Amino acid sequence: MPKLVVRSFTLSLDGFSAAPGQSQEAPFGKDGLRLMNWVFATRHFNAMYGRPGGVEGVDHDFMAKSDENIGASIMGRHMFGPPPDTKDKAAWKGWWGENPPYHHPVFVLTHEKKASIAMEGGTRFTFVNDGIESALKQAFTAAHGKDVRLAGGADTVRQYLKAGLIDELHLVQVPLLLGQGERIFEGLGGVEDLYECVEFTPSQAVSHLRLVKKKP
Amino acid sequence: MPKLVVRSFTLSLDGFSAAPGQSQEAPFGKDGLRLMNWVFATRHFNAMYGRPGGVEGVDHDFMAKSDENIGASIMGRHMFGPPPDTKDKAAWKGWWGENPPYHHPVFVLTHEKKASIAMEGGTRFTFVNDGIESALKQAFTAAHGKDVRLAGGADTVRQYLKAGLIDELHLVQVPLLLGQGERIFEGLGGVEDLYECVEFTPSQAVSHLRLVKKKP
Repeated sequence: MPKLVVRSFTLSLDGFSAAPGQSQEAPFGKDGLRLMNWVFATRHFNAMYGRPGGVEGVDHDFMAKSDENIGASIMGRHMFGPPPDTKDKAAWKGWWGENPPYHHPVFVLTHEKKASIAMEGGTRFTFVNDGIESALKQAFTAAHGKDVRLAGGADTVRQYLKAGLIDELHLVQVPLLLGQGERIFEGLGGVEDLYECVEFTPSQAVSHLRLVKKKP
Repeated sequence: MPKLVVRSFTLSLDGFSAAPGQSQEAPFGKDGLRLMNWVFATRHFNAMYGRPGGVEGVDHDFMAKSDENIGASIMGRHMFGPPPDTKDKAAWKGWWGENPPYHHPVFVLTHEKKASIAMEGGTRFTFVNDGIESALKQAFTAAHGKDVRLAGGADTVRQYLKAGLIDELHLVQVPLLLGQGERIFEGLGGVEDLYECVEFTPSQAVSHLRLVKKKP
């Protein structure tokens, strides 16, 4: 059965996945982009953008695995953008340039009605206005038997977690403080009965954790 | 200069240091005691209670270091107890038996007026009613030049963090979900400017992190 998975989703030591103050220069909010330093260091990340270099090892391996067998993605409105300081909001096509590193259908949860956008390299952004279950259904159809990746952000992951719709989460704990921002683990009493942590694999920089839905 | 330090303070993956529902059987709340499994496994913990056995290694080393150069401790009312299901509350002397593993003066923050309690082995519990700064001053005096350890719980650590009074924190992230409970990192916007993470040392079971106050 295809799964809904979260992969390489990063949390600060104090539990935040993005800081307040998102802008064009700061997709993860003020000083938030350093959450992603472990990603930027990997060979896999560099290869995604056609660049040489980057390190091998635990973090690279988890990054590479994050893209395996994914047929479609789902993301929330803030992860897609545009951020508040964008001048021409109608022209916004995401943060990732003309050839985004998805290369498959991406479903964006939003209240805005908008035509889908076809990008280079196989990525197509489709805007879903009728809720998380509809987006999931559309994503599974588009994934043609592969898994669907829930890309983020925190608010979107939390909604799917609360609904018990996620099959597996790979989370990454980074040893730095953001102070404030968005959490996935907030108001989720009972989640401890639904999910269990089955893997703890630290690298030199971060801790990788894998949570799976408990068998009923 | 003697320091105020937090050591071996444990957080779940979702950021909680205790679950709701504290009782005599559950000092860390419902299903919360498993947060401490990494502690119970160490040789240092067993030695504290005069028992043989336990494992060496990273976790043992951090536990042993947690007790070094400590002249006094501070704790909050819930860490001392009694829990709500205690019948004879007046007779309560803490969770740790007749010979608690402190062996130094312990200052308990509480609104209750209560005579201090001298235990076997050098531990004396003194109840402080006039706030966190008073408790800190009394503890530094009692510590005679050694450091003061802020033992917990989460609410107490958060109050001292918010006031910027802690010099150093050793935190331990455990890969399990509690779902709900008390956090130290809640309502602490700005803490990221006061403290930085200077050490990340994972063991096979948990991640050890050390935060220090930034130089002004």
